[in-house]
Amino acid sequence: MTDHILDRPMRAIAEAVRDGSISFENLMAEAVARHERLDATLNAFKHWDGAGALAAARGADALLATGHDTGPLMGLPISAKDIFGVTGMPTFGGTTREMGEQWATDGPVMQALRRRLAIPVGKTHTIEFAFGAVGTSYHYGAPRNPWDAAQHRVSGGSSVGAGVGLAEGSSLLALGTDTGGSIRIPASVTGQVGLKVTIGRWSTGGIIPLSSTFDTPGFLTRSIEDAIVGFAAVDPEYNDVEELLDELGGLEVSALRLGVCEEHFWDNCAPGVAEGVQAAIDGLAGKGARLVKIPMAEAAEARKCLYDAFLFGVEGLSYVREFFADRMDDIDPTIARRLQAGVDIKAVDYYTNLRTLERLNGVVCERLSHVDALLVPTVPHTPPMVAEVEDIDNYFVANGLMTQNTQPINMLALCAVTMPVALDAAGMPVGLQVVGASGTEERVLAAALAIERQLGTGRQRLGVPPLIAA
Amino acid sequence: MTDHILDRPMRAIAEAVRDGSISFENLMAEAVARHERLDATLNAFKHWDGAGALAAARGADALLATGHDTGPLMGLPISAKDIFGVTGMPTFGGTTREMGEQWATDGPVMQALRRRLAIPVGKTHTIEFAFGAVGTSYHYGAPRNPWDAAQHRVSGGSSVGAGVGLAEGSSLLALGTDTGGSIRIPASVTGQVGLKVTIGRWSTGGIIPLSSTFDTPGFLTRSIEDAIVGFAAVDPEYNDVEELLDELGGLEVSALRLGVCEEHFWDNCAPGVAEGVQAAIDGLAGKGARLVKIPMAEAAEARKCLYDAFLFGVEGLSYVREFFADRMDDIDPTIARRLQAGVDIKAVDYYTNLRTLERLNGVVCERLSHVDALLVPTVPHTPPMVAEVEDIDNYFVANGLMTQNTQPINMLALCAVTMPVALDAAGMPVGLQVVGASGTEERVLAAALAIERQLGTGRQRLGVPPLIAA
Repeated sequence: MTDHILDRPMRAIAEAVRDGSISFENLMAEAVARHERLDATLNAFKHWDGAGALAAARGADALLATGHDTGPLMGLPISAKDIFGVTGMPTFGGTTREMGEQWATDGPVMQALRRRLAIPVGKTHTIEFAFGAVGTSYHYGAPRNPWDAAQHRVSGGSSVGAGVGLAEGSSLLALGTDTGGSIRIPASVTGQVGLKVTIGRWSTGGIIPLSSTFDTPGFLTRSIEDAIVGFAAVDPEYNDVEELLDELGGLEVSALRLGVCEEHFWDNCAPGVAEGVQAAIDGLAGKGARLVKIPMAEAAEARKCLYDAFLFGVEGLSYVREFFADRMDDIDPTIARRLQAGVDIKAVDYYTNLRTLERLNGVVCERLSHVDALLVPTVPHTPPMVAEVEDIDNYFVANGLMTQNTQPINMLALCAVTMPVALDAAGMPVGLQVVGASGTEERVLAAALAIERQLGTGRQRLGVPPLIAA
Repeated sequence: MTDHILDRPMRAIAEAVRDGSISFENLMAEAVARHERLDATLNAFKHWDGAGALAAARGADALLATGHDTGPLMGLPISAKDIFGVTGMPTFGGTTREMGEQWATDGPVMQALRRRLAIPVGKTHTIEFAFGAVGTSYHYGAPRNPWDAAQHRVSGGSSVGAGVGLAEGSSLLALGTDTGGSIRIPASVTGQVGLKVTIGRWSTGGIIPLSSTFDTPGFLTRSIEDAIVGFAAVDPEYNDVEELLDELGGLEVSALRLGVCEEHFWDNCAPGVAEGVQAAIDGLAGKGARLVKIPMAEAAEARKCLYDAFLFGVEGLSYVREFFADRMDDIDPTIARRLQAGVDIKAVDYYTNLRTLERLNGVVCERLSHVDALLVPTVPHTPPMVAEVEDIDNYFVANGLMTQNTQPINMLALCAVTMPVALDAAGMPVGLQVVGASGTEERVLAAALAIERQLGTGRQRLGVPPLIAA
């Protein structure tokens, strides 16, 4: 794949359009062409509207020509996980049928991106009800991870098409949701950046719920810088992208205080994962970042709360019964089994575990307040081949490994980004998870931006996925 | 009982102190004398510290003499339900033993009152773990409702000593908590004002929890005007009492739009209750208030959610297991039975019912936004004689009737005050419940103040309780 303006950072693309190097329409035509070339191989999208996107891009060109400029997201292709309502597109939520009117129109996050004139090109595949982290899709086939040209490897879930869509090059920002890792896992294993904000920071309106206690909307991008562009667009506290980038861009790596820990997050790492993350951390320390050891025994404790009361099963079951009572038999058996596990959980155990998590949040946030961010691997596991997880027991083992390092962050109500820093022994991307206390997205993004400027973006550091380059 | 300065509105008392008519010490001496005269009959207090209160009053006199003036609550006696931590006083929470260190010191609400130099005279009796609305107390005897000189009638729960303590005349503001009516019920049946704020408006820190989802701190006072003085002291948004009274005092009854409804709240009214409330409403309409009929079928629906998933039982059980695991056998059998009912509730039912309540809250708040307040009876039932509720089945019937009209307000996450407007056929006080949408305390208090100025305070309208007057 030769470099195209569409592969540059969003702000550079925006500049190229404004200096007349290319039009939104031509950019969109390139996005559409890429999709048409790669879709049969990658299968990232449930719904695609190339014609609509091209028409919208022409509209953006016309507006820009009149001086109407909504900033760096204007006219650029974005995608939405197929649990987001997007006006004009159907929502299946990974199920066998179109969901109700409630998800037929944009919610607040999508609206915010629309106001910047970002253009939705389609809906990416989701695991049914967003309930699964591996990336096999029962009804619509598993999107293919583009980092393995020989084998069909999974691309992580539940935003299973989001990272693949970015790799395809047909969208630059991919909306997803993260309840137990569903943005960070696909981002990590496809070599992308993924942002999981603190619970409650952004509205989940217009999005099919899995767990109101833990659902968070967010997105995948190709770089931390692009994530900050998206953050400025979505977050109600900000308006001007350049201002936010100036605010967050002032940190040098040598000024960072970075938390490192020994517990939990380094367990079960596949060959090359721990090594890749450790090398990145060492590289930062070598540039003067100060490493501060912090205890994180609460990570395992928090994840235990999730499983002891099967929190997602309980809440997901409540929603599925409401929205899908007449089609329970259609549900993917791995998902049905996990929903079933929620049936017998006692309310008092559910409530007690939520109270425990609230206490742990207080403890961990206090500790994280003393560092810019905690650095740990995002996913310890190599994304498996689809054939390896066809057996349901193998699937559950893989699901547990894929979520090992992301779920504790959700349970502790923290925020985090993942950024690609290495390839593992199987040649699959390895993510560095940059974690902060509740509500400290700005601090985490500032640290991640300093790190990205030091280590390079995924494209600079890892190159182009073999299946795309081919 | 002859009129004493201590029986005036708080602001008039404050004025009397400042113009030299009386000192804080002499006021407190009167409060202590009243307690000593009536305590053996009324049994409002679990803990009393008359000597400490007198010493503090002398300190307040000394401070005022130097020009240190913290406003109308300064130097005045207040009480706290014995689930509030109050520095220097033990907390039993209605149980057989002193609770832990967590409740040995002031929480935020108590701290706010301390900053105004209000003086705690003691801890009023609470139902064990604040879990019961009738007002029988297993371990410490039932405080006596002073409105029946012949029979020992209950005084409502769970802030069972709070209203009786106000009637005793030894405190002017009584801190309580309201999870299903535990402030409004004792206020209503003892002829006092009671304020239940919206969930989350005030911190529950330093208070023994029953249900984190529904617990609210608040207080009882002798009038709406006094409640506004307390509100200005406790609420972080306000500082100056006079300013707030000016802000809320501008409403004329003729300008009020008052919601009235036919559903639920008028069911099961004992003789004289509906009549008393209706007469008050008619009186307001006669002065030009506009009555607007609004549907409130959601009240019964919301209360059904509470019982279908036994929400208080589930959450209460979680806390009791944490704080009291080694003494479960000591718990009052009526409370133990309700906690036991929480054991088998399924988490999915608990969660689904909470979601239903959230939906109902939206519906009802929209409707209430079109009126200043909804007016309904606070308690449909005549507070029973203690002997009548000794049988556990009778107790449960009474508990259901006492909470019929207050629980829906908690479930719907609304705010409300109760104010005395009549005596029922048994001569017991009848409360008018003034209800507003979530977060509209100011609007509710403004309406209630206009109503109080029209109808008179409890003392003006109902006189002095027979047991106190005797």
